This record gives sequence, C-alpha cells and structure tokens, in this order.
Amino acid sequence: MDNQIDTRSDLMIFGALGDLASRKLFPALYQLERSGLLVRESRVLALARRDIQTEEARSLLMDQLRERVPEAQLDNDVLDRLVSRVQYHRLDFADLNQYRILNEWRDGSDNSLIVYMATPPSLYGVIARNLRDASCCTRKTRVVVEKPIGHDLETSRVINDQLAEVYREDQIFRIDHYLGKETVQNLIALRFANNFFASQWDQNHISHVEITVAESVGIEGRWGYFDKAGQIRDMIQNHLLQLLCLIAMDPPADLSADSIRDEKVKVLKALKPITPDMMETYLVRGQYTAGSSLGQSVPGYLDEEGADRNSVTETFVALKVEIENWRWAGVPFYIRTGKRLPEKLSQIIIHFKPAPHYIFDPDQKHLANNKLIIRLQPDEGMTLQILTKDQGLDKGMRLRRGPLELTFSEAFASDHIPDAYERLLWEVMKGSQYLFVRRDEVEHAWRWVDRLISNWSDHNPYPKRYAAGTWGPVASIALITRDGRSWYEDA
Amino acid sequence: MDNQIDTRSDLMIFGALGDLASRKLFPALYQLERSGLLVRESRVLALARRDIQTEEARSLLMDQLRERVPEAQLDNDVLDRLVSRVQYHRLDFADLNQYRILNEWRDGSDNSLIVYMATPPSLYGVIARNLRDASCCTRKTRVVVEKPIGHDLETSRVINDQLAEVYREDQIFRIDHYLGKETVQNLIALRFANNFFASQWDQNHISHVEITVAESVGIEGRWGYFDKAGQIRDMIQNHLLQLLCLIAMDPPADLSADSIRDEKVKVLKALKPITPDMMETYLVRGQYTAGSSLGQSVPGYLDEEGADRNSVTETFVALKVEIENWRWAGVPFYIRTGKRLPEKLSQIIIHFKPAPHYIFDPDQKHLANNKLIIRLQPDEGMTLQILTKDQGLDKGMRLRRGPLELTFSEAFASDHIPDAYERLLWEVMKGSQYLFVRRDEVEHAWRWVDRLISNWSDHNPYPKRYAAGTWGPVASIALITRDGRSWYEDA
Repeated sequence: MDNQIDTRSDLMIFGALGDLASRKLFPALYQLERSGLLVRESRVLALARRDIQTEEARSLLMDQLRERVPEAQLDNDVLDRLVSRVQYHRLDFADLNQYRILNEWRDGSDNSLIVYMATPPSLYGVIARNLRDASCCTRKTRVVVEKPIGHDLETSRVINDQLAEVYREDQIFRIDHYLGKETVQNLIALRFANNFFASQWDQNHISHVEITVAESVGIEGRWGYFDKAGQIRDMIQNHLLQLLCLIAMDPPADLSADSIRDEKVKVLKALKPITPDMMETYLVRGQYTAGSSLGQSVPGYLDEEGADRNSVTETFVALKVEIENWRWAGVPFYIRTGKRLPEKLSQIIIHFKPAPHYIFDPDQKHLANNKLIIRLQPDEGMTLQILTKDQGLDKGMRLRRGPLELTFSEAFASDHIPDAYERLLWEVMKGSQYLFVRRDEVEHAWRWVDRLISNWSDHNPYPKRYAAGTWGPVASIALITRDGRSWYEDA
Repeated sequence: MDNQIDTRSDLMIFGALGDLASRKLFPALYQLERSGLLVRESRVLALARRDIQTEEARSLLMDQLRERVPEAQLDNDVLDRLVSRVQYHRLDFADLNQYRILNEWRDGSDNSLIVYMATPPSLYGVIARNLRDASCCTRKTRVVVEKPIGHDLETSRVINDQLAEVYREDQIFRIDHYLGKETVQNLIALRFANNFFASQWDQNHISHVEITVAESVGIEGRWGYFDKAGQIRDMIQNHLLQLLCLIAMDPPADLSADSIRDEKVKVLKALKPITPDMMETYLVRGQYTAGSSLGQSVPGYLDEEGADRNSVTETFVALKVEIENWRWAGVPFYIRTGKRLPEKLSQIIIHFKPAPHYIFDPDQKHLANNKLIIRLQPDEGMTLQILTKDQGLDKGMRLRRGPLELTFSEAFASDHIPDAYERLLWEVMKGSQYLFVRRDEVEHAWRWVDRLISNWSDHNPYPKRYAAGTWGPVASIALITRDGRSWYEDA
C-alpha cells in the first residue's frame, strides 16, 4: 500500500551532533536503511556548530552507530550505505548568511525537504525564519520539532506562532515519541478493528482505567532542566495525556490524521478541571528522597548534583482524571508517573465491570473482573485476563485466571520491533501526520495542566516524600484505595 | 471445597466385562485412584455373566489397564490398589434370585451405593426392578445410565418410566460424556464468570454460531446398530444439542444442577421446529461413499460389512438451527456432524458481529469479525481471534489476525487432562448432577428431533452422497453459503 507514496527525502538535521540525533535519529535511520525503506535518492544533511568536515562527521557517526545498534543487527554494508548519504556542514543557526549552503546542497532536488529541529525549542523560531529568508522552504517542506513545546500555554503559543509564521499546520510534525510505539498504534487497531472491544469501550462496561509510566532512573545529570519543569510538565502534559486520549477517544470516522486528532482534542476539552477543593483527593505530588534503586543506594532529589535544596518540584504525580462526556461519565482514569520507581514500566490497564450476578465460590469473587493489560514497556504486548475453570477434578468449579496473551516480540517474525523514532521518521517521509501532535492538542493539554499547576501552587506547593525505589508516596495508594480499588500488580 | 463431601462409594458395575467398562470406566477409576481421589473405603463390584472368579477378573482388568493407560502414567502400586478394591461376581441380570449376593457384598456398608448400568438400555428396567425387589436400593442409591435413552420420544419415555418406578429423578445420572469434557465445563466458567463475554453473548453482538463434531472413522463394525439410529439420533439428539444448550442458555441464578438444567430445557423448548417447507434450506443429510480416509482407501457406507444396500440412513447431518427467544432471535446456529470426514475434530465457533463502521483498508474488511474458537478435540482449548496492526513500518495500518490463545494442555501443570468419564464418575461419587442430563432434557430433545425426522421422511428420505474423507455433501457448503457465510477453516 505504501508503494505508491513518494518517500524520496532530503533530511536536514539541525543539531546533528547532539544527544537526540546520536541516540535516536541516526539509529532510526540505520534501521530504515537496513529494512530497505530508504529509497536510493534520499539524502541527509547533518548540521551543527562544530567545525569539522564530512569525513570526520561520518566517522563519528559510524562509531556511534556501532555502539548503539544491537550487534546482531550491525551490518557494514548498511552502515556504508547510510553514511554515504550523509553530508556535514558547520552552521551557526542564527546566521542567515550561512544558510545558502543549504540551497547549494539541495541543488534543485525533487526530494521532499524534511527539516528536523533536534535543537532546544528556543531555536525553532530563528531556524524557521532563516530557512524562509534563505528561500530554502517551499509549501511542501516538512518540519519536525520535539517537546517541550513551551512551559505552559502561553510559552507554547509563542513557539507555535513562530513556526506558524513560516509553515502551515499541515507542514508541522510535533513529535511525542510515545505515539511511535508499536503498542500505542496497535491501540487504534485494537479499539476500532475489533467490535469485541469497541462495543465494550464505555462506562457501561468499564469501571476504571489505570495508566502507569514508571521510570527507575532519577535525574541523570539534568537537574536544572528538570527542576524548572517537574513531572507534570515533563510527562503528564504530553505522554500520559496522549495515551489517555488514545484510550478515551470516540471512534474516528476515518483514519486521516485530522479525524483522529479531532477526536483526541474532544477528550482533552472534556477533561474535568481539578479544582482547589479536589486537590486532596485527585492529586498526589511526590519528591524522592534517598533510597535504593535496582540494588544500589541513590541520593534523594534534593541531594542530586546541582540541586537547589529548597526545590518543591515533583518527581512523581498520581492523578485521578475524569472525562466529562457520555462515554466516560463515572469512569475514573488513575494515572501515575514518577522517577526512581522500582522498575521501568509503562502499562495501561482497562478494568472491565464484573458480571451483574456472581454464581461461583464467594471467596473468589474478587477475581471476577476482566482486565485488558496493554504493556508499552518492557515487552510490548497485550494480555486479556479472563477466568477459566481451575483444572483438576478436586477443584470442582473453582476459578483461575487464564491469561490470553499476545506478546509482540513473540508474535512477530522480525528480529526487531521498530523503535518509535523509526516509525515517526518514516511517517514524516510519507507525509502522514496521524502520529504527530496538532497545535490545538498541545494547547488544550496545557490549558488543563496550567490550571492544575496554578491550583496546587495556591493550595499546597509542597510535594510528599517517597524513598527512591518505592512506588511513590503512600498518598498515591490512598488516592485509589479511597475508591475501593488498587493499583494493578502483576502477581 | 470438596473436602467436606463424603465420597465413600460402593460401585456396582453391571456389564463389567463389556466394552464401555474396559475402555472407559476402569481407566477412569485408575486415574481417580492415581490422583488420590478414591477414598480408602471405596469398593467396586464387577458384575457380568461370564463364569470366572475374582482372581481371574482382576488379572483381566490388570491386562486391560496396562494396555489402556498411557505408559508414563502406569504405576504398579496404583494398579494394585485399584484392583484390590474389585470383587467379581457372575450375575444373570434377569434372575432376581442371584441378586442376594449383592447384599452380601454390601454387608451393611455405609458407603453410597452407585449402580452403573454399562449394559444395553433394554436391561435398565429389569436391573432396576431386581435391585428394588432384592432390597439392594435405598433412597440414596445413585444409578448411572448411558445413551441411547430410547430411539425416539416414546421409547425414551418407556426407559425413563422404568427407571422412575424405582428411583427418584435426583437419583438418576444420565451420561452424555460430552458434558464431562474440560472445555465444556469451562464454557460455564467462561460465559458466566467473565462479564467480558457475558455482556456480549446475545443477538446484539453475535452474528452466528458454528458447532462441528467431525469423526474420521466410519462404522467400525457396528453397521446394524448404527443403521437403525443414524447420525441425527446418534449425535445430534444428545451431544450436539447439549453443546448448543451450553452455548445458548441464559445465565442460571446459581450453579445448582437444576438451575443449570432448567436453563438448558428453556433452550430446547425454544428450538424452532424445522418444518417441511424449511427442509431444503435448513437440513442436509449425507451418506458416505467409497473414498480415502487419512490416506487409506475405505469402502462406502453401503459396502461396509453387514450393510443393507438400500439403507437411507444418514452418516452426515448439517442443520441450521434457530432459537426463538430474546437472546438469539436472528442468530442461526449452524451445526454439522458426520462420519468419514477428513479429521477428528470438535469445535464451537462464536462469530461476533463486526464493528458498525469500518475504517481500515477496504481489502481487509473480511477479517473484521472477532471469533471465539472453542476446541473440544484435539487439543482442548480456546482462541480469541482479534485483529492487531500488522508489524513492519511498510505495512502502515494493515491489519493482521492476532490470536489470543489458551490451550489447556499447555496452561496447566498436570500431565493429564481428566477424561470425561473420570470427571463424571467423580461427580457421581460426590452426588452432583449438574453434568448429567435430566429427563425433561432428553424428552424435549427427542420431541424436536422426532419432528425433524418425521418431516424429512415424508419429504425426501434419500441422503445426499459424499466421498469418504470429504467435509460432507456439497449441499452442506451451500446451506451456510446461502446466508453469505462459510464454515470456519483454520488457515
């Protein structure tokens, strides 16, 4: 089906020697090369400030790839093919005069121009303007930008306005890399290709939903950056609200990018504001103290390198989110995310309502709600938890959990589940926006998050403490227990 | 939970040297012994006409078990323990005078008396009367009988009346061995412990149901017996209608035997009669001709040993069955069963309705109904067929079938899934009737089958031909194709 789409691309990477490019973009390009998806004509222009030549840049790139790519997937031919597409140019992004080299490189090529801004967002505006003023852009240029799109609604508007000065909305590809995960896309197939799920996807059939995105790492040397944001801005505003939208959205009329994004925006607009009187029961903020992570002693957040000991920034958030629409009335979404939790884990759990009448052993009644467990990491896959009869004659009609399992790494023949960036780069090359975030999504998410932040700042800005290596403050347990529920534990 | 139930049993087997006893009952007792379920006090009295002593009978039994039990499960200690419980007595079942030996054997024992009639049904009456007249029975005696319970409604009433002269209905355990299968019982857990299924189990969510019970064997030397019955009496009246009832029944208010059987009877009463004008489109009868079965040439039904070449008895039936109630209005049950089909296979397939609106690739629309596949044999288990996104970036939003699998032999630790007779014997020892067929079930099934038989006999008594080793007459394909559907094939 993709055969007819022209994917010939000239990819300009601004910030090509930076962390994102080396960790994510070039390994993704390597995999695209390896799987034969990069057409012969496609080229890469790597741009950064460092004064080196293409040969040196290529050699750096080779070294990085040899380190990043799993050994079993390393292939010198593929490496050579990829590297030979790459030209490097030194560029001061602020200096319009230097942009003429971009046109020289383009040299009238027919390839789609993709501008990847792997830079701090503060540079998006100047790069966009310089590209325009140097006549590098056409109406078909695609520009890819990364989070954070601002620090709140107002600053996100500034960035989006700067981009909008040069590009139409349908030229702008805002990355939320969670949308590139195999399982996340599978959610769309799962929900809308299977009436078995679709017909139960509402408040009649679902009691509540859990979303957990847990990191075991701490601040990783970026204390100053993180402390200005905090976990809500850094994780909830984008990744978790995106996941929530994909779970909660109404069925789109078709699979076009705008049909899908229209439905996501409807969810964001229906999020119930968390008002001051709800603070105590709908929100828990936490900050980790010294503890133990994966068997190692680790310092607390306030003792990390570069820390300001008076910081009240949260490294953990648990929220009870309600969606005020027909589909989800009365169905809370419990979401939590934090650093220095016991493991790296992202999962979504749909808790279905139990049968209206229970006829099996009374002491097994607690088993009787079906769950769909969607794992994003580790081991992308899904499990449907159903009850079957326990085997063994002496068990009579005892029940047991009988998981129906679908683990993608097992279910698929390939040696490799595409990384989010592979998929997202490929979608940009195809010109398909359905996995990218539209401006109004960003802004509605900020509107809700801004209000939440402002309410808690007025109410109680102090986060609760939790020891590194635990599942956050005890209050997070209380948040869900209060409703007679508990966070799912795989046991 | 079963600990409190007294399972001490005195089991009298009438016809203890016959085929059923040696193929099924003693191997089942062996497994019960092996799993420690036979309590110390339980005893077995083997009864038949042959004039041998207990020692010889025990030795015969040992030989049979060594042949029947899988080698990995053979254990001489278990064999010895079982055989030492067994006494043999020669008995002419018709001779009341000989029945005193039964009382001598009982010798005032407290054990529950279980009378297993592993004999032709024509003997049920005389055995029951003699047991009564010899004062062998109490109100706690349990009597186990096998199919066929009659040849039609009238003859089934005669047999049931004979039993009812001596036993109350709650003492009578009518075996349909399909009800002893793990998967069949699992249907009850699946349907009523999982709201995920329960809430979709109706005409709003299910488009149609298939039940296939295929045998690869032919007549196996019992032509005369089979020819009087035919596939409808031999398979549909009991096994297939029982399966249909378990799929179609409304949820019982509790798990008591009568609550479950009340619901099954409701289904049987709601079966839409297949009237003369429906014959051409609702019924296909077939008779196999010479062909090839599992790689071997085999004769046709009319060329089997002992065959009457004018027989019009069917060896294959396909039916479209409708249930006239709220749950199943408009949902046909396509059922088929036959001999000399390509494989031995029993499965039930629930076809769920597709989503009301389809948004994926038009050429994949045919994939878009979910199916629940319940396998009774081989490999008891269940598969839920769902659609997921096909992996691979070049696949875009292509769908693929992603089965969620539960195979019991893998899911359970035991080396052995209990055979139907093990479970059924165990239930008799516990005194639980929920896996046995109540008189009104037998009679309502016969009422519907009788009418069907009488209608086709008037209409067209000649079965269609099909070659041995094929899936029955072409008309069976047409039966379902006419409705725009097809028999499920695992592909």
